[in-house]
Amino acid sequence: MTIQGVPSDLLQQFAAIVGEANALRDQADIAPRLVENRGLYHGVSPMVLKPGSTQEVSAILKLATETRTAIVPQTGNTGLVGGQVPSTAGTELIVSLERMNRIRDVDPVANVLVAEGGAILAEVQKAAEDVGRLFPLSLGSEGSCRIGGNLATNAGGTAVLAYGNMRQLCLGLEVVLPTGEIWDGLRRLKKDNTGYDLRDLFIGAEGTLGIITGAVLKLFPQPVGHQVAFAGLSSPEDALRLFEKASNLCGTALTGFELMPRIGVEFTTRHIDGVRDPLSEPYPWYALIDISTSDSAETAETMVQALLELGLETGLVRDAVIASSVAQQKALWHMRESMSDAQKPEGGSIKHDVSVPVSSIPAFMEAAEKGVLAAMPGARICAFGHLGDGNIHYNISQPVGADKQAFLERWREINGIVHGIVLSMNGSISAEHGIGQLKRDELARIRPAIEIDLMRRIKRAFDPANIMNPGKVISIDEG
Amino acid sequence: MTIQGVPSDLLQQFAAIVGEANALRDQADIAPRLVENRGLYHGVSPMVLKPGSTQEVSAILKLATETRTAIVPQTGNTGLVGGQVPSTAGTELIVSLERMNRIRDVDPVANVLVAEGGAILAEVQKAAEDVGRLFPLSLGSEGSCRIGGNLATNAGGTAVLAYGNMRQLCLGLEVVLPTGEIWDGLRRLKKDNTGYDLRDLFIGAEGTLGIITGAVLKLFPQPVGHQVAFAGLSSPEDALRLFEKASNLCGTALTGFELMPRIGVEFTTRHIDGVRDPLSEPYPWYALIDISTSDSAETAETMVQALLELGLETGLVRDAVIASSVAQQKALWHMRESMSDAQKPEGGSIKHDVSVPVSSIPAFMEAAEKGVLAAMPGARICAFGHLGDGNIHYNISQPVGADKQAFLERWREINGIVHGIVLSMNGSISAEHGIGQLKRDELARIRPAIEIDLMRRIKRAFDPANIMNPGKVISIDEG
Repeated sequence: MTIQGVPSDLLQQFAAIVGEANALRDQADIAPRLVENRGLYHGVSPMVLKPGSTQEVSAILKLATETRTAIVPQTGNTGLVGGQVPSTAGTELIVSLERMNRIRDVDPVANVLVAEGGAILAEVQKAAEDVGRLFPLSLGSEGSCRIGGNLATNAGGTAVLAYGNMRQLCLGLEVVLPTGEIWDGLRRLKKDNTGYDLRDLFIGAEGTLGIITGAVLKLFPQPVGHQVAFAGLSSPEDALRLFEKASNLCGTALTGFELMPRIGVEFTTRHIDGVRDPLSEPYPWYALIDISTSDSAETAETMVQALLELGLETGLVRDAVIASSVAQQKALWHMRESMSDAQKPEGGSIKHDVSVPVSSIPAFMEAAEKGVLAAMPGARICAFGHLGDGNIHYNISQPVGADKQAFLERWREINGIVHGIVLSMNGSISAEHGIGQLKRDELARIRPAIEIDLMRRIKRAFDPANIMNPGKVISIDEG
Repeated sequence: MTIQGVPSDLLQQFAAIVGEANALRDQADIAPRLVENRGLYHGVSPMVLKPGSTQEVSAILKLATETRTAIVPQTGNTGLVGGQVPSTAGTELIVSLERMNRIRDVDPVANVLVAEGGAILAEVQKAAEDVGRLFPLSLGSEGSCRIGGNLATNAGGTAVLAYGNMRQLCLGLEVVLPTGEIWDGLRRLKKDNTGYDLRDLFIGAEGTLGIITGAVLKLFPQPVGHQVAFAGLSSPEDALRLFEKASNLCGTALTGFELMPRIGVEFTTRHIDGVRDPLSEPYPWYALIDISTSDSAETAETMVQALLELGLETGLVRDAVIASSVAQQKALWHMRESMSDAQKPEGGSIKHDVSVPVSSIPAFMEAAEKGVLAAMPGARICAFGHLGDGNIHYNISQPVGADKQAFLERWREINGIVHGIVLSMNGSISAEHGIGQLKRDELARIRPAIEIDLMRRIKRAFDPANIMNPGKVISIDEG
């Protein structure tokens, strides 16, 4: 297979920057980088470049701007909105940061870690742990996702409740601009009010304004006490009330509060090795509660017991278990983290990553279920997620026995129903996964024109040749 | 006195937008808005406009862009870098948000408060308290500073250690752009990854990209336990070691850790009503320690006692008191918050608002003292501030008996010495006060050209007529 989109002498120039061994031309090598996990997007590209340094990234982008060659940055290829996949035109080169995976510095006194954009999240967590510190970002894909992508998408995950998104976990950045210029913003300061906040502009820009090649990340003390509980509940309303009690009781020691439906527990026990229902009876809903304390292990124990007692007394909790070992804690979290994967053997799944004000979660759940089931009787709603952040992964598995393709063709229609309810509650159609290709046109529809216009002005000011991940987040052509 | 800079028919058009009663033309009314607290800047302006609504702000800025009339936004006029003061040209109109001081909504369940840009910080704190919540931003000027200015300067203060700067306390904004367009970004969501982070671009832009007319602010549970202690120490090095112990012991319950020098305690006891030295002997340095707990009052008590015992045992703390009443807690904080005012009766003061990595504070203190005293024997260094954030207000009172004017004329020279040391430690020349006029040219000198260039590109993209607070933060004319 030959890709005609980029002249071969130009490919040769790009390859020369990183060396032939780091310029993949064979479609068998390139293929895994052209698809993403959900199979929604399948791109075409003549070459994957694997730079080994910030200078090489700079040379690539300089040449790209000069020759108007489109570049798609890629790190762990775990994104869920097609942001890391090239178009089907065959004119875009992939720049993979996989070789730039070093941890440049770890300073447990200053509580900072400096990582390259290609460093794997789990390795960053490990490096922090090795010096007695915590890097709190925690995602299902942490074994393969990389820091540059985590920053470009402002990744969230299960620890946001206590520690914030990636945006809150980053002090400074090194970014290569589309023109090849390098911005060294690798600052380690907690306070620095010196001009416009460029850092937060690059974070969440999904690789459309530059390539993040390095970052200063915040470390935290490792918790001393840690408790994980799993509680059977009657409804999302009760889950919200229990969350409020947990917040009041635990304050910042409440490090996780995840909501799960019965069907999600059934899917995981059915399809995921080693997962079993920790309670003897089934309940309509479940909360996974994570408590971490900095003063003593006893505080965490006291808190989790007091919370469950309060929950049982008030009738909010119908039954509950507290993990009695680290292995049990991990098993409970494993159930939650494999909930999305457990849907795969059940057929097609139409997904939403939405947020609403926390207090609106029960009303959202009710309205969305009504709307979805009216449009598609038999749809199996597996809505789970970060209740404490107002963020629900509103996933819908196909009705039993339905045709997968016919089901998936209704993606936009079902999105329309769920997102309509979200927007009526002043919510977000992408709480943590970003916009990418998947939600670009929808974003332009739902947001005020001035907002899209401001984003286009920034894009044009930073990327005059429109070479950086073109067509992702916003389309620059219109308006 | 007549100002010739703006044609009178144009002034008439601006006045018509807000009504004659809200357009100040008398220089006696305008005068207090032309100077700032330190007396470093004295501007000239023919008119102050006091819009009563976002629509009026919009009409003002639309007319300003059409007629290329420069606008200086002003809220509480408490800024310390001249960002709120017009130039001396007499061509700039002041837009004061003082009439837009409403709190639009308080929602203790969702933990959000919506305020207009002119709402006074203390009134926002009070509105939160009235519903049993905490709005944590706390500054010496909280009785007069206003939310729009707090956001435009990304205000810090004494609660940053636990709760973050204004940037971390804001969920959404309403901004009127230089063109008069209104961006309604008043979102209440904890998670929302939908496009470029416009919010954080306006926060800290010091009114150069638009006027912040409204904001959604985060509320927090009120602490249950609160303790304040005051400890006498030997050195900044010991203060840092005590801070590390306090962080480990208290975790996020450590809500303040302020460093103060002996001379600051002397200045406040001498000049500020009701302040007295809480310890019987003098010590070279002091720490003000604030602990707030969410679970119980006893936890705070246990923590503060354990910390001071540990400090005494290890020799880090030489003597200490714990405030035994709310009145005593307030008195200790009052001493810290009046440290800057207490310098005024001592003559001129050359100020710095710098940050370095927390672990570099002792080395910075030593090097800066050496450098300043070599250049100016007898200078009285009153360096205090937010040790836990790495942020020191490095203020220098004139030598006893020196000529104030001659002393103040050495401002830039002394800045050069202190900022040189800060930059050698990868610190910031403006940790929390911003750039304004005071540090604009210095910023352009010390930062990489690409950074200033990116800022200029953003400024041009948002404010094509260069009417929004021109000449503040960056100069748009060069480059």
